[in-house]
Amino acid sequence: MIDRISILGTGLLGTSVGLALRASGFRGSIVGWNRSSTQARLAQSMGAIDSIAFDPIDAARASEVTLLAVPIYATIDFMEKLAPVLGPGHLVTDVGSTKRLISETAARLFNTPERAAFLPGHPMAGKERGGAALGDANLFRGAVWLFTPDPAAQLSPRGAELAKQWRELVSSMDAKTLDLDPARHDELVAWVSHLPQFTATALSALLEAEVGDAPELKDVGGRALREMTRLGSSPYSMWRDIAHTNTEAVERALLALEQRLALLRENLRTPVLRDEFEQANKFRRE
Amino acid sequence: MIDRISILGTGLLGTSVGLALRASGFRGSIVGWNRSSTQARLAQSMGAIDSIAFDPIDAARASEVTLLAVPIYATIDFMEKLAPVLGPGHLVTDVGSTKRLISETAARLFNTPERAAFLPGHPMAGKERGGAALGDANLFRGAVWLFTPDPAAQLSPRGAELAKQWRELVSSMDAKTLDLDPARHDELVAWVSHLPQFTATALSALLEAEVGDAPELKDVGGRALREMTRLGSSPYSMWRDIAHTNTEAVERALLALEQRLALLRENLRTPVLRDEFEQANKFRRE
Repeated sequence: MIDRISILGTGLLGTSVGLALRASGFRGSIVGWNRSSTQARLAQSMGAIDSIAFDPIDAARASEVTLLAVPIYATIDFMEKLAPVLGPGHLVTDVGSTKRLISETAARLFNTPERAAFLPGHPMAGKERGGAALGDANLFRGAVWLFTPDPAAQLSPRGAELAKQWRELVSSMDAKTLDLDPARHDELVAWVSHLPQFTATALSALLEAEVGDAPELKDVGGRALREMTRLGSSPYSMWRDIAHTNTEAVERALLALEQRLALLRENLRTPVLRDEFEQANKFRRE
Repeated sequence: MIDRISILGTGLLGTSVGLALRASGFRGSIVGWNRSSTQARLAQSMGAIDSIAFDPIDAARASEVTLLAVPIYATIDFMEKLAPVLGPGHLVTDVGSTKRLISETAARLFNTPERAAFLPGHPMAGKERGGAALGDANLFRGAVWLFTPDPAAQLSPRGAELAKQWRELVSSMDAKTLDLDPARHDELVAWVSHLPQFTATALSALLEAEVGDAPELKDVGGRALREMTRLGSSPYSMWRDIAHTNTEAVERALLALEQRLALLRENLRTPVLRDEFEQANKFRRE
């Protein structure tokens, strides 16, 4: 069984994974690292990690499994640094929100019998703000944890075994695992994750311009407004790499929504409005 | 003090008002009427109304205060029917989601010393589905209840007193009252209420077209997707009259959002994306 895990990046997701591993009964050791040592100490004080690594590369070398829980381009950087120093006894996995670039990089640098194994992963869970302080042992309960394994990968036997065990640990956190092709993944999350976020950002930015100078008027909108703008709090830092690495799919989704809004706008007094409401109702039907 | 209230329309809002009046200690009698008698009987069995009126016009005549809790055009119909049969000892008020048409009708048919008083109202509370069964004594707790009184109205002394007492009853339900000009009201709710609804409808309808045939993929979106599409359940019947009576303001708001989404789409890889996220963050800052 997996005995030692490194979590590189102890923000919201990394800290939550550490807490969820412990809550699900994982007995091995968990070493953590974060660019800001404050976040690492916070994760340690919360019990998400046992110890703080001085050097993330050394920590990965000393672990069987390394979880990269940093933004996408930082994940790529780590992959470049880790590939030369890890071997067939290591598994690296990640939590990045887009998977095409990461999966391509994995095929280039990992996943041969002589190299470390890399299993691209993406838990569909998060909060509108980041940071270790919001870490939550229950974050993945009932959530979907996507993987985009490469069918052409030739894992070492030990790498394959570690990937299997990591999937079991993910299931033990009560997440539902689902495998997808990386391109299909990026297309799908453009619709069900990135589009809702960018819509909330655009709506919030627009409303700040229109009614931001009259804060009492925000109350007028009530629950519906709060809900539709909650994701407006999401920081740019969490979304920049997503916008950069899934640009075309997000562009397509945004354009389609612009067209759908225009259709509503041009039909506020025609039967098309009824059709659109009925189509929307269908999406929400169980 | 107000002794007898008629609630015409015992759907979600009418039933919730009855329940909230009782919960806040109102001791007078409450008579209800609904086009579908099933909804009226349900409201009565829940304790929202004491008795069911056979004829809504007779019920209003026998009450000091009549609350119209029906869609906007049905509200206008009732105003036309009630104005000739009520007098200076009566107050009529409503819960309609747009206020310009209703306020204009009130100026035409009510609010002289010889006629009944009409106080246009709009509680900013609701649910994504209607019906008496969802009635909730706490629906208005902490919500804003808007009024759009006409400064030129010449209420009878009794009408003015009843309007004052109705405002007190609304406050006793723990709603915060706020007075607005009717045109300003309709412009404001286009931004903070109608735009969020139509956005959720367009997003849900689009996603039904894109991923509706793969229901397991809805799970992938998690909380963010559920939240951004919850209002997609709202029925056309609740929104048709709003689209018809606030068309120009809703068109402006929708067009502005289309342009804002296009701005994001054209700048997924430029510093404008950061500006938009920061503007959105501002809206959500306390």
